[in-house]
Amino acid sequence: MSGGRAFVDITMSLDGFITGPNDSVEAPLGEGGDRLHRWVYDLASFRRAHGLKGGETGRDDDLLNEALERTGAVVLGRRMFDHGEEPWGDDPPFHDPVFVLTHEAREPLVKQGGTTFAFVNDGIERALKFAKAAAGDKDVSIAGGANVIQQYLKAGLLDEMQIHVVPVLVGDGRRLFEDLGTEQIELEGTRVLDSHDVTHLQFRPPKTEGGAS
Amino acid sequence: MSGGRAFVDITMSLDGFITGPNDSVEAPLGEGGDRLHRWVYDLASFRRAHGLKGGETGRDDDLLNEALERTGAVVLGRRMFDHGEEPWGDDPPFHDPVFVLTHEAREPLVKQGGTTFAFVNDGIERALKFAKAAAGDKDVSIAGGANVIQQYLKAGLLDEMQIHVVPVLVGDGRRLFEDLGTEQIELEGTRVLDSHDVTHLQFRPPKTEGGAS
Repeated sequence: MSGGRAFVDITMSLDGFITGPNDSVEAPLGEGGDRLHRWVYDLASFRRAHGLKGGETGRDDDLLNEALERTGAVVLGRRMFDHGEEPWGDDPPFHDPVFVLTHEAREPLVKQGGTTFAFVNDGIERALKFAKAAAGDKDVSIAGGANVIQQYLKAGLLDEMQIHVVPVLVGDGRRLFEDLGTEQIELEGTRVLDSHDVTHLQFRPPKTEGGAS
Repeated sequence: MSGGRAFVDITMSLDGFITGPNDSVEAPLGEGGDRLHRWVYDLASFRRAHGLKGGETGRDDDLLNEALERTGAVVLGRRMFDHGEEPWGDDPPFHDPVFVLTHEAREPLVKQGGTTFAFVNDGIERALKFAKAAAGDKDVSIAGGANVIQQYLKAGLLDEMQIHVVPVLVGDGRRLFEDLGTEQIELEGTRVLDSHDVTHLQFRPPKTEGGAS
């Protein structure tokens, strides 16, 4: 990894959802949305990011660890921030600078454990530029929600998408891919890894000429 | 394979569509929907089924050949039949008995090359029963469209789904998974095979107690 790459690393149901139905502040993952992330909760690197010891190791853990290790900064949407702020608590699991896309100016928030939230109200390109600067020789995680990922994808600003496909149909919720228009978007499959309960698909999305790479 | 299994074998875009937008009699795969099946057209077994010689061999061809070889009968919906009847021509690519789900009684059609179309107007279970009888020790392909596959899935009548995921976003069209309700449906991943331009995911869907297996 050369650093400075913008990547998405997200779990999706086989029917294309990244939350269950009716997500809200009370239920950020929607009804039953925990099911999607079940493959993650017991992994050693997930537990470590949440200040817990122990946990499972192996391929899934290696993959999650890889994503956590390469991350030097995070970009996320205002809605995801509003939903997450309380459950993330005083020591949020990012431990990195986080850039939150907003429409109004707002003072940064400094949390424990290395997480800072800075609010960016002049567009996704600028937020990514700040995040790349903050990440140094590490990469930038475009963490969500779906709408934010779609904006970066459409703008041709993503270097990589890793989608963890879970073999469950949730029927409703937030779709990872939506409102992208009907001009076909070609991705390039770059890696497929399979483990017991989840299939990890990695893609290279199309980049716009002149987008940082 | 012990025979008598009901299986789905279908190509889906990464964003969940099995056709492009606005499918019709004139464009059965929707606008740009050919893209989804591009991985198939040059394969030796596809060409053979369409009366052509030559073509590519390898993993993709092996998989397609496996699906064609195991098929002893086919079930499909009326809409798919209406869209396909003309392009399939006098020697349709099935070469097997085909059972078409309809709402009205209709005489069977006998075509060249072993394809017969029988019309079943008393439900999906009965159509599957006929198809299994016709298939003998081979399997039954539930060929589509999406709505028919969803009905069999919901009814717990499918033994296997093989989904060929193509790394393209088509934006609109017929979704493979839709209108299934919000009660989560758990599938079991049974095989993942990857080739250059397509990832083949095989699943075991939930079966209803008493469903033929």
